[in-house]
Amino acid sequence: MQAFIDADRYWLNVNLATMQQGRYAVQQDRAVAVKDGRISAIEPMSALQEFIGRPEALAGKGGWLTPGLIDCHTHLVFAGNRATEFEQRLQGVPYEQIAKQGGGIMATVRATREASEQQLFDLAVPRLQALMREGVTTVEVKSGYGLSVADEHKLLRVARRLGEVFAVNIEPTLLGAHALPSEYKDNPDAYIALVCEEMIPQAAEQQLTRAVDVFCEGIGFTPAQCEAVFSAAKAHGLAIKGHTEQLSDLKGSQLAASMGALSVDHLEYLDATQLQPLVDNHTVAVLLPGAFYFLRETRLPPIEALRAAGIPMAVATDFNPGTSPLASLRWMMGMACTLFRLTPEEALAGVTCHAAQALGCAADRGLLAVGQRADMVLWDIQHPAELAYQQGVSCLKQRIFNGEVHHV
Amino acid sequence: MQAFIDADRYWLNVNLATMQQGRYAVQQDRAVAVKDGRISAIEPMSALQEFIGRPEALAGKGGWLTPGLIDCHTHLVFAGNRATEFEQRLQGVPYEQIAKQGGGIMATVRATREASEQQLFDLAVPRLQALMREGVTTVEVKSGYGLSVADEHKLLRVARRLGEVFAVNIEPTLLGAHALPSEYKDNPDAYIALVCEEMIPQAAEQQLTRAVDVFCEGIGFTPAQCEAVFSAAKAHGLAIKGHTEQLSDLKGSQLAASMGALSVDHLEYLDATQLQPLVDNHTVAVLLPGAFYFLRETRLPPIEALRAAGIPMAVATDFNPGTSPLASLRWMMGMACTLFRLTPEEALAGVTCHAAQALGCAADRGLLAVGQRADMVLWDIQHPAELAYQQGVSCLKQRIFNGEVHHV
Ligand SMILES: [Zn+2]
Ligand SMILES: [Zn+2]
Repeated sequence: MQAFIDADRYWLNVNLATMQQGRYAVQQDRAVAVKDGRISAIEPMSALQEFIGRPEALAGKGGWLTPGLIDCHTHLVFAGNRATEFEQRLQGVPYEQIAKQGGGIMATVRATREASEQQLFDLAVPRLQALMREGVTTVEVKSGYGLSVADEHKLLRVARRLGEVFAVNIEPTLLGAHALPSEYKDNPDAYIALVCEEMIPQAAEQQLTRAVDVFCEGIGFTPAQCEAVFSAAKAHGLAIKGHTEQLSDLKGSQLAASMGALSVDHLEYLDATQLQPLVDNHTVAVLLPGAFYFLRETRLPPIEALRAAGIPMAVATDFNPGTSPLASLRWMMGMACTLFRLTPEEALAGVTCHAAQALGCAADRGLLAVGQRADMVLWDIQHPAELAYQQGVSCLKQRIFNGEVHHV
Repeated sequence: MQAFIDADRYWLNVNLATMQQGRYAVQQDRAVAVKDGRISAIEPMSALQEFIGRPEALAGKGGWLTPGLIDCHTHLVFAGNRATEFEQRLQGVPYEQIAKQGGGIMATVRATREASEQQLFDLAVPRLQALMREGVTTVEVKSGYGLSVADEHKLLRVARRLGEVFAVNIEPTLLGAHALPSEYKDNPDAYIALVCEEMIPQAAEQQLTRAVDVFCEGIGFTPAQCEAVFSAAKAHGLAIKGHTEQLSDLKGSQLAASMGALSVDHLEYLDATQLQPLVDNHTVAVLLPGAFYFLRETRLPPIEALRAAGIPMAVATDFNPGTSPLASLRWMMGMACTLFRLTPEEALAGVTCHAAQALGCAADRGLLAVGQRADMVLWDIQHPAELAYQQGVSCLKQRIFNGEVHHV
């Protein structure tokens, strides 16, 4: 009761999907108080008779509150436009020919290197706003289209500035080992040395990132190269994570997990019988159904085995110009159900509590509980399963960031 | 020049994807004038030097104009919520058990029958607004969840009222032969007789619809029953169309086309070697990638054969609670490309000129040309391929309906 008297703001008559233990963990007919950007009380309405008649009460009648959504894997900052490449490929032009003409990821790298921080910021804004409009309150943003020390750090600064300007948490991740820049095409190890000896140490020193990511793949970097990157990251106190087993089984997930990775992401080719390192290290499996869909992949991540092993599964957009130009975490929840057979409850956990764990910030995000950050969404729905089931129809009433209501 | 002096409104410095002959048919650096809700002039900017400095000119600098988008197949009006059924199915409950518990389409029919016109209207509004927000200016709306004369007509009146209240064209379609109501479960022919002898004649008399649709399928109605419905429709001056070859090849498409159908819709099981009736009757093939996706169908419509035969392909949402709760025509354009391998140009034709043809209103909709209705969208894009390529990121600057700019 006192918490409501002291509150900066409160919501009455709401149903909560608290997402405790990865379940809806529904609490119906509740009142929620917020103080100093944190949830300060959650009480049954019946315990708050005095408040019910108070005119200053914010109406939340019949609405559902969930944790603010968390997109734990995006490549939001880049320049260049690959729509015409998309068209060419559908006209039958092979990828090799497009790459030879300077298309593909190298077109994005070239345009990104040429762009100023301000230009990159301006290009990222509508992408970020698309996510925020759907109730996202935390977004991981990877570098990875600069591929030089200066350009990778430029992308991380743009990511940081997005978080300073907009009412959203940005978690930047250094993905220097995303692709091999053409300057190093005959000497990948020299590029890895640059990543380990300059890119990572300087990013750590300048506090540009809290985590380091790699692309462990035949068309990316070898497990040995990724291990070197991870070691350098850990030596500088940074968290690690990996793009692993997207196109083949190089055991990158096991490598990353055994080195303590927060998450391993993609996982279509992950060996279902070798999940113990993920279990042992509390590594989150991040599922990216948008890339699966866009690439018309047919091999599914080993969902049943991940579920059976109790490995938390997160769901993210992987927003990027090449393989997932899809800025909608709600659609990804739906695709996680329709394509990967997650339940709507698992999909919601995948963009709340499990996504928070994938970013190493589960201590105060991803759940509705006293003491957690007051990043929440108030929805006009009858059941939280609707969030994965129906797309397009607007059902967001309020996006609440740091205890404040933001109209988007 | 005179057309611009006389215009109600005009746009300068725009690029046009006119969609003539189903192609982008790009016209760059154009000025477009509108008078009395129709396009009255399209001129190169170079021919309008006098106008360029006029302060009252509406800015369209660098934007792209396309025809307003047309969603030619929706089931927008219904009551009830099937999100929990979606959750149950993903938890492994078989459809048969859900149906036995009163779920499935009959749950929608029950809720729809119980709902008042006002309730149905209120439920349809956010669905319609979702489409309009993306640039849709014409929406086909089917009945089909009433399955009695009074309830089917109720749905058609709700559809008509949506068009009266909102700045959008609504094209209602009577789909009495959507499913067999339980009252007739032992006598489907008696239900078909009701459709033919009461539902259709009264709807025609009350001008509730311009077209009649059927569900020709093992779980729907036989070709002979559909033929009876089509004959009744034609006898009352109504256009015909069909849900055909969605789950099996009953030759419903050929039947409908040979009777002059405007469109045949779904078509996953359409025999690629038997397309001549569609060609001969100028029947449009309506592709519904949302239902294909949501049902995890693996058999593709015979796109190559349709393309080779020169049959116009439209793309629609099929928005409905059971198989496509996906209120986004932009996402359907993307799915038409990614899942069905249409080009972005074909996808855009599919929601403009070919969708207009599917609704029998190509005479004045679906193209940018002098004399056409001024239903248009102004986009903040660099190339029209972006409309199918990228999702979520807002790029709509203006939705123009009947020559007026509507902010959504
Ligand atoms: Zn990625
Ligand atoms: Zn349909």
